[in-house]
Amino acid sequence: MKTLSVDLGNRSYPIHIGPDLLGKADLITPHIHGKQVLVVTNDTVAPLYLEKVMQSLSGFNSNSIILPDGEQYKTLDTVNDIFTRLLENRFNRDATLIALGGGVIGDITGFAAASYQRGIDFIQIPTTLLAQVDSSVGGKTGVNHPLGKNMIGAFHQPNCVIADTTTLNTLEDRQLSAGIAEVIKYGLIRDSDFLKWLQENMDKLLSREPDTLAYAIEKSCQCKADIVAEDEKEHGVRALLNLGHTFGHAIEAASGYGNWLHGEAVATGMAMAAELSHRLGWITPNDVDIVNTILKTANLPVKSPAEISNDRFQELMAIDKKVMDGTLRLVLLKSIGEAIVTDQFEHEQLLTTLNHCRAV
Amino acid sequence: MKTLSVDLGNRSYPIHIGPDLLGKADLITPHIHGKQVLVVTNDTVAPLYLEKVMQSLSGFNSNSIILPDGEQYKTLDTVNDIFTRLLENRFNRDATLIALGGGVIGDITGFAAASYQRGIDFIQIPTTLLAQVDSSVGGKTGVNHPLGKNMIGAFHQPNCVIADTTTLNTLEDRQLSAGIAEVIKYGLIRDSDFLKWLQENMDKLLSREPDTLAYAIEKSCQCKADIVAEDEKEHGVRALLNLGHTFGHAIEAASGYGNWLHGEAVATGMAMAAELSHRLGWITPNDVDIVNTILKTANLPVKSPAEISNDRFQELMAIDKKVMDGTLRLVLLKSIGEAIVTDQFEHEQLLTTLNHCRAV
Repeated sequence: MKTLSVDLGNRSYPIHIGPDLLGKADLITPHIHGKQVLVVTNDTVAPLYLEKVMQSLSGFNSNSIILPDGEQYKTLDTVNDIFTRLLENRFNRDATLIALGGGVIGDITGFAAASYQRGIDFIQIPTTLLAQVDSSVGGKTGVNHPLGKNMIGAFHQPNCVIADTTTLNTLEDRQLSAGIAEVIKYGLIRDSDFLKWLQENMDKLLSREPDTLAYAIEKSCQCKADIVAEDEKEHGVRALLNLGHTFGHAIEAASGYGNWLHGEAVATGMAMAAELSHRLGWITPNDVDIVNTILKTANLPVKSPAEISNDRFQELMAIDKKVMDGTLRLVLLKSIGEAIVTDQFEHEQLLTTLNHCRAV
Repeated sequence: MKTLSVDLGNRSYPIHIGPDLLGKADLITPHIHGKQVLVVTNDTVAPLYLEKVMQSLSGFNSNSIILPDGEQYKTLDTVNDIFTRLLENRFNRDATLIALGGGVIGDITGFAAASYQRGIDFIQIPTTLLAQVDSSVGGKTGVNHPLGKNMIGAFHQPNCVIADTTTLNTLEDRQLSAGIAEVIKYGLIRDSDFLKWLQENMDKLLSREPDTLAYAIEKSCQCKADIVAEDEKEHGVRALLNLGHTFGHAIEAASGYGNWLHGEAVATGMAMAAELSHRLGWITPNDVDIVNTILKTANLPVKSPAEISNDRFQELMAIDKKVMDGTLRLVLLKSIGEAIVTDQFEHEQLLTTLNHCRAV
């Protein structure tokens, strides 16, 4: 087991990464300060891992709530269902929530914890690669609104993150690839050496070779932890973690939440960001090729759906948390391994990029 | 105009108190950092003051949303209506919300600001005495759940509080008295001299003598600001501000939100807290008389509704944010001017108090 730390003063917390961590009570229980625990999970993960987690909570007044699986359930209504369960069971301000599942479960549970009685503790037990390398770390929590993804939420840091790499054995291939998209992202935004390593080890990653997976998760979590420690509330460098996300969120929204996996939409978004970066003269055609090739090798899409018109795309992109005073800002690539947030692109260049990256 | 400060480091903010402040753009605009502003108000306050506030926002991209008036609308659904309006108007992370109204408007608006795009700025313009002396200061925001009052929310401090005492001229007598309940609270929990002053000046307060009102608001805000600066997230002394609130919340919930005004329920709750404090031997029958008399002089109720049984009362009190590990904790009086949080009372003493304080 490897343990990293997210350094946030008296709100610092550990990230434990390794095989067979799920049942280990000694990793979880030191982070539970009251007696009441509610495990939030979904109907895909519950049959696989819920019992193991509940067993490690003997001695606590523990309950579980099983939500339907899918991004389409990442709503305020679902959060309210959690509040109802907490109140029905008379959960107090010293209760702890545990998120057992992927990014959707983590985001919903974190926001419920942020808002129940103005904030209670929570623990992340991510069971997808995407959640282990990205969404479980850093305290971004929230839900979607019909008019925009992740528009409702809070910054609320977990007490602890437990990434059990054994849980990835039950992950569908498509989900594994979606997680790899976020791993590739770290290489693109600030570590060209890591990107090279990914190019060389993609086969082993896709075949879930344990040491290769563990290394990719550690590198990713370290990168995320460093950035979050530097800029918790996204006033600066943290925005770079959104490479591909403005394009990606538009694809997710236009396609109906849950049809494209978040990582898939981000993959296509990164290909689009690379294309626009090239049109700005920042990266070479060869760099664009590198981006497209590694994404395709990871079985990820690089073209946006044919049915999203330019107008619709721009309409959806205009609802983005990085927009300031009405101006769209995007994370683009200055080079492979260096990203920036910028509004310095022409409208025409954006349109050409949208056209170029659309599936035919 | 008098200006107090809530000292919270780089999140410190001013409280301006005085007549005719509503239209003064120079008080509001320095606290708006983007171009987009949404004023949240209700259908009672809008006809009186909305135009004046909107006029002071010329130069901004300003909108308003008018909610139905009443505690029964302090729900997650109403907050979602605000999100919808913000997204329909493409409001970004640098937008500002302005709460124009009483405590309900302030609580809803503050929670919307806390949760929209993980937190945007907001300004409080309280137009009821209760909001001016209590709820607009200190960053407690939130909404009710059918199973418990203020169970969903966040700590989110405003950028500025503007308490225009002229707005109190249009307040119904019943609302004025409800606000006085919270003013009396400050005297009871930590300032016996102020309580004496209130006893001597209650007539002038009720007749809305401007200088008397202004002094009561300043004293209350100063007390609140001091306590919030000392204990923002209610780990200690801030809990004392909940004198009467555990009993009061139970009355509000049992009676249906909106039937009892919050201040009325708190008044009865304080009478009940005084009664229990006496039964514990902490305060004299004369002290209990002092509490009951000043509340009655302020035209506030001191008896709980006849229809709430002891079982129902206790069931509702068990859902309280001060409960820890299943143990009910109450704010009680050690003396007039000194409150403590305690679980050191017998169940029998609580039952006797519930019986004693019930209307016949």
